[in-house]
Amino acid sequence: MNTIGKHIKLTSYGESHGEVIGAVLDGFPAGFKVDFSYIQNQLDRRKPGQSSLTTQRKESDEFRINSGLFEGKTTGAPLNFVIKNTDAKPKDYSALKDVYRPSHADYTYEAKYGTRDYRGGGRSSARVTAGWVAAGALVQDLLEKQESIKISAYVKKIGKVETNTASRYYTKDEVDKSVVRCPDTKIAEQMIETVELAKREKDSLGGVMECVITGIRAGVGSPLFAKLNAALAQAMFSINAKRI
Amino acid sequence: MNTIGKHIKLTSYGESHGEVIGAVLDGFPAGFKVDFSYIQNQLDRRKPGQSSLTTQRKESDEFRINSGLFEGKTTGAPLNFVIKNTDAKPKDYSALKDVYRPSHADYTYEAKYGTRDYRGGGRSSARVTAGWVAAGALVQDLLEKQESIKISAYVKKIGKVETNTASRYYTKDEVDKSVVRCPDTKIAEQMIETVELAKREKDSLGGVMECVITGIRAGVGSPLFAKLNAALAQAMFSINAKRI
Amino acid sequence: MNTIGKHIKLTSYGESHGEVIGAVLDGFPAGFKVDFSYIQNQLDRRKPGQSSLTTQRKESDEFRINSGLFEGKTTGAPLNFVIKNTDAKPKDYSALKDVYRPSHADYTYEAKYGTRDYRGGGRSSARVTAGWVAAGALVQDLLEKQESIKISAYVKKIGKVETNTASRYYTKDEVDKSVVRCPDTKIAEQMIETVELAKREKDSLGGVMECVITGIRAGVGSPLFAKLNAALAQAMFSINAKRI
Amino acid sequence: MNTIGKHIKLTSYGESHGEVIGAVLDGFPAGFKVDFSYIQNQLDRRKPGQSSLTTQRKESDEFRINSGLFEGKTTGAPLNFVIKNTDAKPKDYSALKDVYRPSHADYTYEAKYGTRDYRGGGRSSARVTAGWVAAGALVQDLLEKQESIKISAYVKKIGKVETNTASRYYTKDEVDKSVVRCPDTKIAEQMIETVELAKREKDSLGGVMECVITGIRAGVGSPLFAKLNAALAQAMFSINAKRI
Repeated sequence: MNTIGKHIKLTSYGESHGEVIGAVLDGFPAGFKVDFSYIQNQLDRRKPGQSSLTTQRKESDEFRINSGLFEGKTTGAPLNFVIKNTDAKPKDYSALKDVYRPSHADYTYEAKYGTRDYRGGGRSSARVTAGWVAAGALVQDLLEKQESIKISAYVKKIGKVETNTASRYYTKDEVDKSVVRCPDTKIAEQMIETVELAKREKDSLGGVMECVITGIRAGVGSPLFAKLNAALAQAMFSINAKRI
Repeated sequence: MNTIGKHIKLTSYGESHGEVIGAVLDGFPAGFKVDFSYIQNQLDRRKPGQSSLTTQRKESDEFRINSGLFEGKTTGAPLNFVIKNTDAKPKDYSALKDVYRPSHADYTYEAKYGTRDYRGGGRSSARVTAGWVAAGALVQDLLEKQESIKISAYVKKIGKVETNTASRYYTKDEVDKSVVRCPDTKIAEQMIETVELAKREKDSLGGVMECVITGIRAGVGSPLFAKLNAALAQAMFSINAKRI
Repeated sequence: MNTIGKHIKLTSYGESHGEVIGAVLDGFPAGFKVDFSYIQNQLDRRKPGQSSLTTQRKESDEFRINSGLFEGKTTGAPLNFVIKNTDAKPKDYSALKDVYRPSHADYTYEAKYGTRDYRGGGRSSARVTAGWVAAGALVQDLLEKQESIKISAYVKKIGKVETNTASRYYTKDEVDKSVVRCPDTKIAEQMIETVELAKREKDSLGGVMECVITGIRAGVGSPLFAKLNAALAQAMFSINAKRI
Repeated sequence: MNTIGKHIKLTSYGESHGEVIGAVLDGFPAGFKVDFSYIQNQLDRRKPGQSSLTTQRKESDEFRINSGLFEGKTTGAPLNFVIKNTDAKPKDYSALKDVYRPSHADYTYEAKYGTRDYRGGGRSSARVTAGWVAAGALVQDLLEKQESIKISAYVKKIGKVETNTASRYYTKDEVDKSVVRCPDTKIAEQMIETVELAKREKDSLGGVMECVITGIRAGVGSPLFAKLNAALAQAMFSINAKRI
């Protein structure tokens, strides 16, 4: 339900307009020094309002870890990540009490639970992923430092503008050079234009992002239902977005 | 690992060239009359050697259920499906002892387990899916009869030949009219030609299949990591095939 | 690891001398009005320092639920319970840095994790059960109101003093009449005396508690490994205590 | 439900009067040479009819493993254990169609599933444990050979006859010297007498068995809900027997 993972398990909680977004990370190894700035940096990369192209909600997205740590290192006990919601203004949403927004999970939640938290997306908001990013960043840091596994994700296509840049590991600096996070700076310019055009027309655009992971040893994952690509597919389809 | 599902769990066992392919289905409701011919029919649709276009391995793929049944009905206890391997000729494979076949999991299995059953695909063979089809057919029959949920899958594209037929439920008869399982009979003819051409050139072709499910109530599935499409993604990526 | 339950799952986090004790309750049905005083009452019954007979740590054990609620009712989303540690004085424990306390998990944790949070019991402290009690009280309230399942637990024996009172449901008032929580008031007096005697001798005593659950329908639980008594056994053996 | 274990998972299937008793063992490491006689020996120790003191059902309890093996060694794939029922005579049980036997799960199963396999205990029969013993023996052999973990179980008390022999590891030979499996041969004689007396009076007796495990490293198991003793408690309470 709200838990994913096998060796290291993430349990997610919190709503877009509740008090907090949270995540409990269980099974993380003991003795790892937590690099708070690495995690905060990944949260900063996630948060909306970084450019005029995205949603304008403002969140500082500062996180705390209030369990599982002793003298800056993990103890093997579950780590609880907490991000306070500071821009949650429930009153803004009272108009949504009686309507279902298109392309949101409003109707589905009401059909399932017989009730609905109409303050924004509630549990189905993409804001919930802030908890995943925080906990995931800690795991990413572990993978890089202990297993030399590196993960790179970047935008490949927005609307009809597509780059044919090589599928490879790009550093965060290379990816972040442009606000659309496409490492091909020329194409990135065109992507920005196409988004701005769509925005003026009060439209939105789909896109394609690519994720490259390097350094995985042969044999990682388990056969059949726990194959690495089956596990990644489950995880990616869990992200709040419409896929075609 | 070798188990999938939440309310109804499937545990898979067996190898392509071992004695049996098997599956244990746990959590299936009691009191359901098993329609053996429905299940056998789905197994017959899966088995290779149905036309000159596919692999020529010959298997009768007769199944037994040797637990969880009483007087033809399910009891709520786990159901064990067994399909004997009759065309398993280990000697055919001794040449593979020291080579890894391309596009197979031979190398990966050896890297993971330090050993390899080189008699065909072993555990990574698509033959393993026979157990899934048998157990899945029983669940499909339950879904149709008790929930009016109907599942239809058909081929949409082979190589560069693609149909633009409507995405809808097709009966098994409509799908099975052509050996390539495309309900658009004109395009199906072209698909057959393109496969035969590739075969003559000792090449193979990729394709696209489409699956349409009708009758699912709003709210089925659970939020986040157990979303219906996340669960389906995990299941589909578990099928032994290369995806691009 | 730190998660228990099948339909309703509890994930526990927090340490005795960290910032918080927490618990995430996932799978709880939507639309249930949370009775905060019922939960607080159960937490008050759990907390130490209620009489001169027990450990003297003082905690207010006030809890918050900061997710999964909307207008006082559950939404079906995970509920995060938080209890702040107010009496956590790490400096008190520096003397324990280099010693293992008898009958505690100090050595085991260090053997397992290669590191130890020596501020009290850390993760192995019975204080961690505060989160279980809070989340469990909500479930208990649901069971009482929706399923008429009632749970009663009381002390049967301390040291050699034992009651032969009937095994039945006792109200909380009946159980709480005496500080040792034995509903047999005469025997309770003797139990208090035997504890006070042991305390003067700087000794401790074992005991037996009994739990009676009424109103469970026949057929609840699942065969074999998820039998109700197997599930209860796992849960009871998870409580931090030595059993003989 | 019918699956237990974390790293190595056992899935049980089959009924006392069905075709087979089976078990799928998933997660067992690759490259281990299966000692068939070790497993058969444990099955022989389990089977009824070994003395005049127990139930007289006769089963050869020969097992097969029909998956997960290659050249006598495990491959890392799931191992399917099959034990055929040869003494299953359903007609013997037709008299039970309309009655519930005391101290059996007959009524519970019917309450849960709305239907009942009245041929003996069906799924709730202790015969189902034959599959656990077979799969468990393989794991026991692995634990002994690779981890030097040794497991010894023996009878401590029958009715009111009790031994005060030391709690320690006894070899199978020491335990099996007497038909009641008590390594204290003098007390064993008295146990046999008390069972024979009860049998003449058409009564049965309870008892206590003790299990000693040696060689476990400190830190095995996981905190809280996966503590070693919590896991063992769940497993022991899963065995078909009444506990007081």
